[in-house]
Amino acid sequence: MNKKVIDYSKKIDSIVSWLNEYLDTTGSQGIIFGVSGGIDSALLCAIANRYFPHKSLALTMHIENSQEDIDDAKLVLDTFNNVQNINVDLEKVYNTFLKVLPIGLTEQSKGNLKARLRMVSLYSHAQDKKFLVCGTSNAAEFVTGYFTKYGDSGCDILPLVNFPKSYIKECAKILGVPEKIINKKPTAGLRPNQTDEEDLGVEYSIIDDFLLGNFIDNKDLVQIIKLQIDTDHKRKLPASPLQKGKII
Amino acid sequence: MNKKVIDYSKKIDSIVSWLNEYLDTTGSQGIIFGVSGGIDSALLCAIANRYFPHKSLALTMHIENSQEDIDDAKLVLDTFNNVQNINVDLEKVYNTFLKVLPIGLTEQSKGNLKARLRMVSLYSHAQDKKFLVCGTSNAAEFVTGYFTKYGDSGCDILPLVNFPKSYIKECAKILGVPEKIINKKPTAGLRPNQTDEEDLGVEYSIIDDFLLGNFIDNKDLVQIIKLQIDTDHKRKLPASPLQKGKII
Repeated sequence: MNKKVIDYSKKIDSIVSWLNEYLDTTGSQGIIFGVSGGIDSALLCAIANRYFPHKSLALTMHIENSQEDIDDAKLVLDTFNNVQNINVDLEKVYNTFLKVLPIGLTEQSKGNLKARLRMVSLYSHAQDKKFLVCGTSNAAEFVTGYFTKYGDSGCDILPLVNFPKSYIKECAKILGVPEKIINKKPTAGLRPNQTDEEDLGVEYSIIDDFLLGNFIDNKDLVQIIKLQIDTDHKRKLPASPLQKGKII
Repeated sequence: MNKKVIDYSKKIDSIVSWLNEYLDTTGSQGIIFGVSGGIDSALLCAIANRYFPHKSLALTMHIENSQEDIDDAKLVLDTFNNVQNINVDLEKVYNTFLKVLPIGLTEQSKGNLKARLRMVSLYSHAQDKKFLVCGTSNAAEFVTGYFTKYGDSGCDILPLVNFPKSYIKECAKILGVPEKIINKKPTAGLRPNQTDEEDLGVEYSIIDDFLLGNFIDNKDLVQIIKLQIDTDHKRKLPASPLQKGKII
């Protein structure tokens, strides 16, 4: 009963202002991002569609994704058709990569390879247009390190990174993201039939409660802190030896 | 005459101790790095050869490199043959990538694409072996931002990042890096006949003086500061909106 009423429209406004200022200050010409068929990139696409229609480029870059994800990505792009979109056939690159590698990869490593190739493709499109590569990580993914180092986290800006998953959902509703996308089970699309919550060992709603300072079970708290510690290096710059120098 | 005498053997020792501690603390099984035929990766290979012979993997990943670079990389690997090495034919991946991209790339973007594919290849080999991806950037490259974001800077550790180019040279001499490698003109291998110093607009010896607090011409100082400011984002994590929270 004590729960604070959150004005999600204001949350969207704050992202839009920040994006405008960031583009302006850096002299960038727009934003580029991948659309996977999931809710996070759908929300970003919805924001781009309403507020940055001539300054946005959405890429679809499916690699062994399910037909459902491919259809959902198309649904997002059809819904938000002010955003220019391009499909990149990364599956050919992925298969060539697997062929030239002299070793076999685990399923986990294959998933990370896919995420990194998407990053490379986004930067290939971004650089000459002076666009910023825009990641779609939310706060629940970020705090648990649920992303590929130099893959989906390899970007210039992370506008949604302070939004718990519940904020993503509510903002998506306001901006007209199709219900099918809002209600589907989150998946990083790294393996067939994979779901985020199975990988994480804890539900998004509980990670959100953690992020918002609400009570959660000790078992879940332990799991979240474990994920956070294990993935600490993914939220840091590369480590290097100490350099002699003054601290103050 | 006032120049401090530097004990370069101690500099090497400090890198080795740091690497040992870092591997130990993180529970990593070894280090992996690319060997380009240049001096920085040759020094890293020399260190690996002497101090981490059974915990190192060197990859050659030439993409449109000159025959000289290919020969020099081979010379490094033949000299330091305690280090296991593997060649990865990334040129096929690179060509497939260019084919599937629906746009043409500038020479600059092609260079960055090559560097990023090398990063992806290093991580593909590192992950299942629990090896750390080891970048070879030195202090002169790092301060001027002379690296590809999520390319050669996409790594877990940067052991040489506090070494000016002159330290790299002196340490390379101590550890027996072939003279041919020590004396060749530095090139990032991004374009044919490219040299670092032409790209940078300032000589490495002057950047070293800047790093070591020695006097340099105003014109050079302005150029270094300009490079540093323009590349600031490459030495930072992705930007994100401010989050409400306590500062102290």
